[in-house]
Amino acid sequence: MLIQDKQQRDWKTIIKKFEAVLGKNGVVQRREELITYECDGLTSYRQRPAVVVLPRTTEQVAEVVKICDRHNIPFIARGSGTGLSGGALPIEDCVLIVTSMMRQVLSVDLENQQVVVQPGVINNWVTQAVSGDGFYYAPDPSSQIICSVGGNVAENSGGVHCLKYGVTTNHVLGLKVVTPDGSIVDLGGQVPEMPGYDLTGVFVGSEGTLGIATEITLRILKSAESICVLLADFTSVEAAGAAVSDIISAGIIPAGMEMMDNLSINAVEDVVATGCYPRDATAILLVEIDGIAVEVAETKQLISDICLKNGARGITTASDPETRLKLWKGRKAAFAAAGHLSPDYYVQDGVIPRTQLPYVLQEIENLSQQYGYQIANVFHAGDGNLHPLILYDNSVPGALHQVEELGGEILKLCVKVGGSISGEHGIGADKKCFMPEMFSEADLETMQYVREAINPKGLANPGKIFPTPRTCGEAAKMTDIKEFASVERF
Amino acid sequence: MLIQDKQQRDWKTIIKKFEAVLGKNGVVQRREELITYECDGLTSYRQRPAVVVLPRTTEQVAEVVKICDRHNIPFIARGSGTGLSGGALPIEDCVLIVTSMMRQVLSVDLENQQVVVQPGVINNWVTQAVSGDGFYYAPDPSSQIICSVGGNVAENSGGVHCLKYGVTTNHVLGLKVVTPDGSIVDLGGQVPEMPGYDLTGVFVGSEGTLGIATEITLRILKSAESICVLLADFTSVEAAGAAVSDIISAGIIPAGMEMMDNLSINAVEDVVATGCYPRDATAILLVEIDGIAVEVAETKQLISDICLKNGARGITTASDPETRLKLWKGRKAAFAAAGHLSPDYYVQDGVIPRTQLPYVLQEIENLSQQYGYQIANVFHAGDGNLHPLILYDNSVPGALHQVEELGGEILKLCVKVGGSISGEHGIGADKKCFMPEMFSEADLETMQYVREAINPKGLANPGKIFPTPRTCGEAAKMTDIKEFASVERF
Repeated sequence: MLIQDKQQRDWKTIIKKFEAVLGKNGVVQRREELITYECDGLTSYRQRPAVVVLPRTTEQVAEVVKICDRHNIPFIARGSGTGLSGGALPIEDCVLIVTSMMRQVLSVDLENQQVVVQPGVINNWVTQAVSGDGFYYAPDPSSQIICSVGGNVAENSGGVHCLKYGVTTNHVLGLKVVTPDGSIVDLGGQVPEMPGYDLTGVFVGSEGTLGIATEITLRILKSAESICVLLADFTSVEAAGAAVSDIISAGIIPAGMEMMDNLSINAVEDVVATGCYPRDATAILLVEIDGIAVEVAETKQLISDICLKNGARGITTASDPETRLKLWKGRKAAFAAAGHLSPDYYVQDGVIPRTQLPYVLQEIENLSQQYGYQIANVFHAGDGNLHPLILYDNSVPGALHQVEELGGEILKLCVKVGGSISGEHGIGADKKCFMPEMFSEADLETMQYVREAINPKGLANPGKIFPTPRTCGEAAKMTDIKEFASVERF
Repeated sequence: MLIQDKQQRDWKTIIKKFEAVLGKNGVVQRREELITYECDGLTSYRQRPAVVVLPRTTEQVAEVVKICDRHNIPFIARGSGTGLSGGALPIEDCVLIVTSMMRQVLSVDLENQQVVVQPGVINNWVTQAVSGDGFYYAPDPSSQIICSVGGNVAENSGGVHCLKYGVTTNHVLGLKVVTPDGSIVDLGGQVPEMPGYDLTGVFVGSEGTLGIATEITLRILKSAESICVLLADFTSVEAAGAAVSDIISAGIIPAGMEMMDNLSINAVEDVVATGCYPRDATAILLVEIDGIAVEVAETKQLISDICLKNGARGITTASDPETRLKLWKGRKAAFAAAGHLSPDYYVQDGVIPRTQLPYVLQEIENLSQQYGYQIANVFHAGDGNLHPLILYDNSVPGALHQVEELGGEILKLCVKVGGSISGEHGIGADKKCFMPEMFSEADLETMQYVREAINPKGLANPGKIFPTPRTCGEAAKMTDIKEFASVERF
């Protein structure tokens, strides 16, 4: 028998049941093949699942979940595994339900601006499916060429264009979901606002704790007639921050508004050499404007004026697709480029009210000096969604621990100024201990009432989002589900 | 003792407890004073509550709810009582918690575009509080000069400007809520996307079944630089419907896009005499465009061209505030004007995919002829949200029953073409029997898991949204809560 039966589970029988549903090719159980699935984008934690299953249909997912339910086996859904908060991190002795065989675009309805996809469909395939007809799918995480729509739904992913158009939850009209007892339910639907409880909204961002989405109805948007990207070059972060505030105060909502600091700019130029980012700038703003041509032209002028008034040294604009892509290329490569600055980096994800930008960036600089780790800042300035990249070397003993502590201080700072501990990466396994910083016990309890109502046995992605078992009863139920603490640390 | 103790409840003691929390002025118990509270905007059903309480603070609401919880008394929240689905309809022997003393705007934060209000605040007071600084609150039900924000939250209200800006749920950032056991919890918050479950989204539109919102954080928007209203006059409903489709297909999202048929046009001109609506038009489209001046000018031209191409006889436009108001005046008065067409009217609220407009309007006309009742159509054409007004005389025996049946046929038609049984008025008491038309048993069960998790005793607004008690256990719990069936019919 290949899998150790640590939990006195009869894995041999269970795997036979999975194979009966999925065929032999739909079940991965060899130790060396399971290594791929040990972690997601949060690579500092790893845990091998007992078995990986690869369903192709809603019905197969439901059958797999029913088997898990019957045998009290925890199960965790995984898309492309690019999540940054460990939302798809396995626990010991679990079944990992991977959606990589569920990659069909099921229907395209241009008239009603809707697309139905399976959860394994890659984010930018949605746009590819409709761009020929002049449509696109708005939420665009940096990982959009590899991340899955199902993962986006689980983590309520954002992206650089979410300032104007909103995050994933604003674009999910409906879901077919396999609940933790294996039932198949429809949440939401074709029309934007449905009667009854908005369970679509609860499901989006519930990080796999309420079931598995197997069909996702997405809203697609008409591509704008005209798009312009504007790069403004500042000699201080405060000035760039003030420009952001002034742009929004002027009633302008750009499609995206991103800030990068000097460290990020140079990292990006070292790696992808856009040639567009001034290496001596303290900060740059990248602003995208879209709409009809006359509107874009006028707004471009307004934004340029605001940036210059706030001390921008220079402004570059691009309206043709090639130059626009070139201006965005560096921003999109920023996380990858950070990997060239130091052996390891830890990306944090916090939100602050826009008005607190200059104060918070100064405090992050202070924390950086206090802890002795460089921090590169690349972020969604328009919506106050920070992504400090803490640079470190994991081979130095104790470094990860210190970096996590530093990351935690940044999150507490975000909460202190009225912000949030996550903008778009989710809570997952990584940040659950920070939830009480943001929510009262009653707030968390109310959320867990919902989790227990829909996931009463706690088998769906246990140990994620919420800091501890809430009740003794729940703790008892979880005795055979090894908690996250048992996960091997790398 | 003024109140009959039908349920063997010791109302004398209970009322003393309420008075201890609220003072004598905060409790209404005289039979003649209770008449006001017998119904909401769905006037065909009436039921006197046992007692009405008028709290002023979150803490007072929590104390009142705790007393209800301890004595197992059903309680129902009510704002201004303008709801059209009977969401605030009392049941026998209940406590009605009225928010009319909770009318404070608690804070205005222009920098972060947020306003915090108590639930009794009137919808258009929010705009009034910030319009001097160039901001406004987008959702605008026709009843906005009287309806409360708390009621808007309960019913997830829409309005003529929700096409571009979304309904109430898109503008509620956070809520302080008294849950059915009297706990005070915070859902959501200042930042647009919070981690954990999106319970703000579930609460908005839950029609009082999950507790009572006592503080509401609303997003306010910057007023547009330029606004233009365009009235296009058509000789057929099909042509007007085709123009709507073409406008949206051109990638234009107007701020609002409304349609009125000939019957509504004449009703409105009879009553408010705008002088702007051509009495011989088969249908008119009212389109509002907002944005920066150049954009509005160009979009106005595009929309005019589309309307003319689809056979519009003429187009009137208005850019100054007075003329704009005049063009909107008739639309805003349409429901009231329908009251002059016949002794009574029943307003239906259904949603259809925009592409189905011509077919559905023809079917409604067929149903009108089949049942022998005139139907006036006034609706949010841009989002496919229909409001057929069925004209009848309630003094004719059996008329209400027939009209309800006709209304039901219209709802079934909406579902058949892929739409919804409610766009913005909610399910309340009126439409719960149609929920199974739209949702499977598993779908409804999943929603009720959530209701039972947060409202386990079923005391918060019983008998609303869901068609029947779900489980025997629940039915047993409800033995001393007289079901909606017992409500007196008028």
